[in-house]
Amino acid sequence: MTTNVRVNAGRLWSSLMEMAAIGATAKGGVRRIGLTDEDRQGRDLFRRWCDRQGYAVRIDPCGNMFARRAGTESGLAPVMIGSHLDSQPTGGKFDGAFGVLAALEAMRTLDDLGVTTRRPIEIVNWTNEEGAVFRPMLGSEVFTGALPLDTAYQLRDPAGETLESRLTAIGYRGERALDPNDVHCYFEAHIEQGPILEIERKTIGVVTGGIGLMWYKIKIVGVEAHAGPTPMNVRRDALMGAAEVALAVREIARARSGGRGTVGCLTPYPSSPNVIPGIVEMTVDLRHENAAELTRMDSAFRAVVATVGQENKLASEVDLTVESPPIPFNPVLVGFVRDAAESLGFSHLDIVSGAGHDAFHMARRVPTAMVFIPCENGISHNESENATQFDCEAGCNVLLQAALRAANEASEL
Amino acid sequence: MTTNVRVNAGRLWSSLMEMAAIGATAKGGVRRIGLTDEDRQGRDLFRRWCDRQGYAVRIDPCGNMFARRAGTESGLAPVMIGSHLDSQPTGGKFDGAFGVLAALEAMRTLDDLGVTTRRPIEIVNWTNEEGAVFRPMLGSEVFTGALPLDTAYQLRDPAGETLESRLTAIGYRGERALDPNDVHCYFEAHIEQGPILEIERKTIGVVTGGIGLMWYKIKIVGVEAHAGPTPMNVRRDALMGAAEVALAVREIARARSGGRGTVGCLTPYPSSPNVIPGIVEMTVDLRHENAAELTRMDSAFRAVVATVGQENKLASEVDLTVESPPIPFNPVLVGFVRDAAESLGFSHLDIVSGAGHDAFHMARRVPTAMVFIPCENGISHNESENATQFDCEAGCNVLLQAALRAANEASEL
Repeated sequence: MTTNVRVNAGRLWSSLMEMAAIGATAKGGVRRIGLTDEDRQGRDLFRRWCDRQGYAVRIDPCGNMFARRAGTESGLAPVMIGSHLDSQPTGGKFDGAFGVLAALEAMRTLDDLGVTTRRPIEIVNWTNEEGAVFRPMLGSEVFTGALPLDTAYQLRDPAGETLESRLTAIGYRGERALDPNDVHCYFEAHIEQGPILEIERKTIGVVTGGIGLMWYKIKIVGVEAHAGPTPMNVRRDALMGAAEVALAVREIARARSGGRGTVGCLTPYPSSPNVIPGIVEMTVDLRHENAAELTRMDSAFRAVVATVGQENKLASEVDLTVESPPIPFNPVLVGFVRDAAESLGFSHLDIVSGAGHDAFHMARRVPTAMVFIPCENGISHNESENATQFDCEAGCNVLLQAALRAANEASEL
Repeated sequence: MTTNVRVNAGRLWSSLMEMAAIGATAKGGVRRIGLTDEDRQGRDLFRRWCDRQGYAVRIDPCGNMFARRAGTESGLAPVMIGSHLDSQPTGGKFDGAFGVLAALEAMRTLDDLGVTTRRPIEIVNWTNEEGAVFRPMLGSEVFTGALPLDTAYQLRDPAGETLESRLTAIGYRGERALDPNDVHCYFEAHIEQGPILEIERKTIGVVTGGIGLMWYKIKIVGVEAHAGPTPMNVRRDALMGAAEVALAVREIARARSGGRGTVGCLTPYPSSPNVIPGIVEMTVDLRHENAAELTRMDSAFRAVVATVGQENKLASEVDLTVESPPIPFNPVLVGFVRDAAESLGFSHLDIVSGAGHDAFHMARRVPTAMVFIPCENGISHNESENATQFDCEAGCNVLLQAALRAANEASEL
């Protein structure tokens, strides 16, 4: 019975810490930006570990790494599991690395115990998920055909170098592309990057899908004037309009269960203590897991900007800069994750991923699910990012059980 | 009867335009920053005009220029009238220059008509009122003893040069200081720099005093977090706190007749579209003409910051950076200005100066009043600053009548 296998928590932790030594920062974090020499070192280490297990390692033209543990039946598409080894410029030890090394530990465990699977299981390390250069989720975007390889190759970093030349420079411009149609399904384990599991005291997040988002740039235009001689009733104060919009964004999000609304950037001009701002530029980020609700949030937001403009005699421009619809994961695979958590005795919670992941690109082409584990105070993209050894072990065991079931059962996905 | 004298509007306008040619900008404005060569050229032109009239020109150690038209009775302190010839980096033709050249035109008129006065009348051009370098209202601050000359001399510009060396460089480091105790009273004519006279369709602003102001730097500290995975109910969003504070500042000002409240600067950190700001720094500018009301505004503001902090689980710091109490002008002299406007048949309005002026420093040592004229759309400190020839003439005539009365009557001030 494969449900009795358990991963080696000590080995998983050692691998995480060994990987974290590459690009380690003084504050205990990691700087392993995609397509740098640190990224190359991380990839090389991962490849050595896979070689040692005897997995067939392939690199595709976008630098995505695949390490296959063979299955027992020929001609079956693999179950893919993994994440990414690159980090934010001042990132942590777990974001990405946990998903790749949990996949590796799961396979090592099968090797230890001599467990075979019908389908192959393929570990993946996606190129440049963080987008500290070029753009985020680049490897999975190219792999799934959402971004043509030729277009990706011509992307340039701030120094003017192309993706193609940087892949060549680190020795990870591969030859052979895998076809997403040849992948049976995909699982990704990841730290939550939010506080919900910690607050709810749950060990496993059963990720039901990715949240939808709308990004806007807003420009509010009033009349710049001297703060002293200009009475309140004749002002056309762009900053007060922006403050009303910001608070309305919060109300729009609060009014819907699961809604999120954020103003991350806000810049008044000319930005002098005694000048009434004539212009404010700001960003708005609206999110919801339900497409219809997200559309309603968009409408409510646009109405608010118009009303605030009218009431304060301000002009406004609203540009939708990014629109990403909600991405539901495969219900059968989500069930595998939930069943695995349940049967292993871990507390769990259905959760929507609020951050972006390679799994979002994959879900558009391949049946996909994710496993979340808690991270301390919900903090990620930060050198103080942390997760417990217990939670890492739990997430790894859930990943293993879900992958085993997908690799052995003849389920319709 | 001296009440029959009228200034020469064409000559006043010509002088304004000739002065505006020094440092003229392509957009029709003026760049005549204090202590630059343009400032020197403006001063030289003013001195030539005064020399031509036979006025005794003196320069004090801070570069303030005084041009005296003698009175008929010896031993009487002069009536001082004037303003400043320096401009903002992208300033207009009228801010400051109008007050100096209206004073000059008033004296030229007396010369034309052979009108004598009991007291001398002394035109003043204050050094560096705008504070484009060093600090604003520098000349009048030193003249009135609010800033010791030695301290002022050691002030350094961004290039490291001292005020003393820059005064020497332009040839306006004078020798003889006038004692403010030897000044009978002071009048300053100026564009309003606000929209009230234009909105109320009045020609003359009878300035009853200077508004009081409090400047604050506020720091609001929450918890930086990812906009996607962080539910609304666990956020500690510094920007939403800042927006609540901004709107409360507006309410505090609106709740009091004559109150003003402005947020000119607001900077969220880290300023990324998908990161909930963990810190916001902002400025607040509160003003009122009544000291007790200003104190109440200060209390209300501090209470609001505390409440917003508690309700949103945010920490906050409030630093009072500038405190300038309201400055009432001399009621007798204010009456002279009001009477002059009335007797000349100009519509007029009692008004408080919301912007700062050399007259504020003077008012702490010398009986003082001001005359405002409208400026187009309330705009100043801008190349598009504008005033009509009619309003300039009106303001100049009011200044002349008020100064004549002060120079001839034996009023108790």
